[in-house]
Amino acid sequence: MTLETVSENKAHGGTQGVFRHTSTTTGTDMTFSVFVPEHEEGAKLPVLWYLSGLTCTHANVTEKGEYRAACAEAGIVFVAPDTSPRGDAVADDDAYDMGQGAGFYVDATQDPWVPQFMMRSYIEEELPALVAEQFPVDMALQGITGHSMGGHGALTIGLRNPDRFASISAFSPIVSPLNCPWGEKALSGYLGDDRAAWREYDACALIADGARVDALLVDQGTADQFLDEQLKPELLREACDKAGIPLTLDMRAGYDHSYYFISSFMADHVRWHAQRLRK
Amino acid sequence: MTLETVSENKAHGGTQGVFRHTSTTTGTDMTFSVFVPEHEEGAKLPVLWYLSGLTCTHANVTEKGEYRAACAEAGIVFVAPDTSPRGDAVADDDAYDMGQGAGFYVDATQDPWVPQFMMRSYIEEELPALVAEQFPVDMALQGITGHSMGGHGALTIGLRNPDRFASISAFSPIVSPLNCPWGEKALSGYLGDDRAAWREYDACALIADGARVDALLVDQGTADQFLDEQLKPELLREACDKAGIPLTLDMRAGYDHSYYFISSFMADHVRWHAQRLRK
Repeated sequence: MTLETVSENKAHGGTQGVFRHTSTTTGTDMTFSVFVPEHEEGAKLPVLWYLSGLTCTHANVTEKGEYRAACAEAGIVFVAPDTSPRGDAVADDDAYDMGQGAGFYVDATQDPWVPQFMMRSYIEEELPALVAEQFPVDMALQGITGHSMGGHGALTIGLRNPDRFASISAFSPIVSPLNCPWGEKALSGYLGDDRAAWREYDACALIADGARVDALLVDQGTADQFLDEQLKPELLREACDKAGIPLTLDMRAGYDHSYYFISSFMADHVRWHAQRLRK
Repeated sequence: MTLETVSENKAHGGTQGVFRHTSTTTGTDMTFSVFVPEHEEGAKLPVLWYLSGLTCTHANVTEKGEYRAACAEAGIVFVAPDTSPRGDAVADDDAYDMGQGAGFYVDATQDPWVPQFMMRSYIEEELPALVAEQFPVDMALQGITGHSMGGHGALTIGLRNPDRFASISAFSPIVSPLNCPWGEKALSGYLGDDRAAWREYDACALIADGARVDALLVDQGTADQFLDEQLKPELLREACDKAGIPLTLDMRAGYDHSYYFISSFMADHVRWHAQRLRK
């Protein structure tokens, strides 16, 4: 697989890279970032995936996420993919919450989103294979996190692949697309009207349908403008309680939905993952 | 003085704000950011000024500087001004290194830059008065730092005001505008051809002319593309050695001129200032 280096900058003792490749899954060029901490020659490091929210590319968390110091200290590789295929030849929607920048980590089944909007397969299959081939990572030690739409991505991908991810966390995630306007719009658009087909893309439904993991960590700001209508962490609380999944849900007083919130608790999340990503 | 709040976000336990005011010094609206850590009611905190480099506004360091965690821990207010007056009615130059975004922290004496390009007076007089009035700061405990052109600003403003600043540091500063293309262009444009008038805007010349401070801290990346032609830290080394000023000049192997470099050592600088900003 061919990987183009867009940029590499030394940071916190390691290397922050941005890379581009032609994805066979989406049929487009895809860009992502990888931070590799300083490490011994030949070492393979645990990897933490970070899935971004609506409107974001890899760049938002790469610039504003404040993860590098903690990843350098813990010896963890941090991978930040894009949130959708992009380009003039790619389907889009005028709204910020559908189409480019809003892939919702699903494999679309509906026009005009097929065949390019295949972000589930891209994140679950193609990109991990590429990362495993090109970077010093131990694919037996993976964690996943994300923000908002990307928190939804992290929870659903983690819950569907509990043997792959030793640790799953999220910042202000959309916990139930079945039960919020963002989710109803996106999943009906990408997957059609049969709501049964949506359940594998809904963290609460996955848990209700039997998915089990050892632990979940969620941070949520109480001043988040999307809290009541879109995010609804109480639904995840109920689902986890019913299923006996230990959920640490930290409601952070006064914090909003921005990277000022994410960056405030990023180091805590990295350390939480690091504890669970030891050999 | 009237201050407009552009945005406020809770971050790292404190508040990251962005503010706008109408400057009597530049005759324009000016925007700046202030991070105020969590603190006891009525407390006055030390303040660290951060002056930005060419092309930057307050936003670059605010988003990418990774200073909030360290400032929160040390209880230090962090102020990031803009680098020039801006607007359609403000003089400018097509080049990135002159005019808007490139004020060089001087009080201009030449057309078309007078009367608006008064960044020395803005940073030394008007903005401190505003900050002292509007924020919980102890103006007896001030430090100053900055990057590149802003490193030049921090060094020269600090050297001219040793009684005001208990601590002075810089990231990849322009140490001698008299001796580099950026400086020669900017100072001849803003100040005219009499190089004697430039000396108060040149850290090395200020030291040669008698300015004295207790200590200086400078971090410089060895892979910085501007190192040899523009930055020349060896000139500061020579000037400090000759004057007996203790300079800690940390040459950082492999680091470039970007915020990936700055953010890697920002916490170290904040802690260095914090040690010197205790009552």
